[in-house]
Amino acid sequence: MNTLTNPAGSPGTVPSEHVQPVAAQGGNDVVLAFDIGGTDMKSGIILGDLAQGDVQVRDVQRHPTPLEAGRTGESVCGRIVELTAVYRAAHPELVISAVGVTVPGIVDEEAGVGVFSANLGWKNFPFTATLTEALGLPVGFGHDVGMAGEAEFRLGAAVGKKDVLIMVIGTGIAGAVLCDGSRVAGGGYAGEIGHAMVPAPDGSLAIMESLGSAGAIARRYTEATGTAVSGARDVLALAAEGDAAAKTVWKDAIDALAFSIAQCVSILGTETVVLGGGLSMAGAVLFEPLAARVDELLTFHRRPEYLHAALGENAGLIGSALKARTMKDTA
Amino acid sequence: MNTLTNPAGSPGTVPSEHVQPVAAQGGNDVVLAFDIGGTDMKSGIILGDLAQGDVQVRDVQRHPTPLEAGRTGESVCGRIVELTAVYRAAHPELVISAVGVTVPGIVDEEAGVGVFSANLGWKNFPFTATLTEALGLPVGFGHDVGMAGEAEFRLGAAVGKKDVLIMVIGTGIAGAVLCDGSRVAGGGYAGEIGHAMVPAPDGSLAIMESLGSAGAIARRYTEATGTAVSGARDVLALAAEGDAAAKTVWKDAIDALAFSIAQCVSILGTETVVLGGGLSMAGAVLFEPLAARVDELLTFHRRPEYLHAALGENAGLIGSALKARTMKDTA
Repeated sequence: MNTLTNPAGSPGTVPSEHVQPVAAQGGNDVVLAFDIGGTDMKSGIILGDLAQGDVQVRDVQRHPTPLEAGRTGESVCGRIVELTAVYRAAHPELVISAVGVTVPGIVDEEAGVGVFSANLGWKNFPFTATLTEALGLPVGFGHDVGMAGEAEFRLGAAVGKKDVLIMVIGTGIAGAVLCDGSRVAGGGYAGEIGHAMVPAPDGSLAIMESLGSAGAIARRYTEATGTAVSGARDVLALAAEGDAAAKTVWKDAIDALAFSIAQCVSILGTETVVLGGGLSMAGAVLFEPLAARVDELLTFHRRPEYLHAALGENAGLIGSALKARTMKDTA
Repeated sequence: MNTLTNPAGSPGTVPSEHVQPVAAQGGNDVVLAFDIGGTDMKSGIILGDLAQGDVQVRDVQRHPTPLEAGRTGESVCGRIVELTAVYRAAHPELVISAVGVTVPGIVDEEAGVGVFSANLGWKNFPFTATLTEALGLPVGFGHDVGMAGEAEFRLGAAVGKKDVLIMVIGTGIAGAVLCDGSRVAGGGYAGEIGHAMVPAPDGSLAIMESLGSAGAIARRYTEATGTAVSGARDVLALAAEGDAAAKTVWKDAIDALAFSIAQCVSILGTETVVLGGGLSMAGAVLFEPLAARVDELLTFHRRPEYLHAALGENAGLIGSALKARTMKDTA
């Protein structure tokens, strides 16, 4: 990381990108990225020659999201401005030349607007315009899982793939869909695979994440047995030991996840499924029964490959930085 | 259609496209289009200034598809060559300057290959290469429902829409999906919504077209009652008269169709649903309960509008002609 210690670095003084690939991106130019969640907002400095697939994340911080009835959009932007000043003071050797911001909910990325978030309470809040004016910097704004997907498509597990479903399986489930090499926006409404209906074990219909998410696995086990668990991992461990209720809850989760994957394969010709989020860490215990169940739901269709998300929990930050870099380069 | 009687017409002699829009496309230049089905192959002359949304279909013919074990691809191409000569002889005033061909099954449109068709029995047959060589003309080759969708997107019901699901509901069900303004190819595997799983009335899973297609509606009514019907229209009429079995079969069909539409809305942000094929002629009896049922399956999602396919049963022919015209213009 020696290029970062070169305070004189600037695009004009770099003799060759082959000699100093990081400097070629703009010397000590970095993107400061924010991932706004319902409880915390995560931030971090993204550096490296992103166009070359070289990415590093530094000084990751978490702060409480400043929820404020009716004006959370405004207070989040205010906090981003404050934190940008804090990061600048802490890293005088770096030039924060762009900002990335991801938010959950319905997002109009083209317009730079947070259309709706149930947890955060905004409606049509103009993040890009507000932050561009307040910071005087290019802003890469997008949906949190969409941006994580973008990062996986461009730098991570899905590089070179054309028809991809990325699912981030945590407390809930959100997705990003790549068709023919482009991420589907759907006017900000695409990717809500966790809220698509699936057949429930009792014969009714349920939203997919109410059966397939890590949160649902823990909750459903406790509901079935009265036994508290700390999370889906406990349920998986119990299932491995032969606990009948844990096995049932786990099978239901696999069925729900597989059903939604098979929908994408049938409708979109999905060739690659990238799984991220806490539950994906289960590895083969998840991937193997999932692939087998998807297979049962298909006939003449493609059979997708299954990959683990490569960029980890900072994928959203990285995706927004990629977008911010694009904004900056085309500004 | 007076421009067609101008045998001297050619692009060079047309003074203004505003005066003679059809001639502006190339005088008496036309596309001969073929829609290859499992039983019949339909053909017709497509003329008009396609780029201006002006399209006419003339001399539509149906001939038996020359099924030939192991070489149906070859025999279909042979028949296309013969019929092109027949059309030329019958229409000496027209110049057939390109050919459009649509086929069912898995189709690699980019490579011009019929990858697989269960009904027609080919595997990786190179339609575009075979016909281009045999005819010496540009060939617009594609999936039948995909090309019908393309036509609806460019000239029909879905003009100006960005996120569209087209379903053609006949004996079976096939779809075409438009995301962010582009038709999804999925390597030839996209659009198989009729073969996506849906919850069946008995609590199991079934492929969607086994409940929602016109063919399934007639078959399931006969299975339930022992009463033969001539088609789904009979079942609809019986349901309107209060026949309990007909009402159940119809409700099951609506549930299946709505389930698949809601999947698209959740995953892709679909804003417009275009329905074509025989069953779509049922009109409000289909559209109203369908929209109501989709609504029940959604929460914060988009609510799609429902449109009747505008180009009728010749949409596939028109779509392949549009593609052929593009091939010709870029040749």
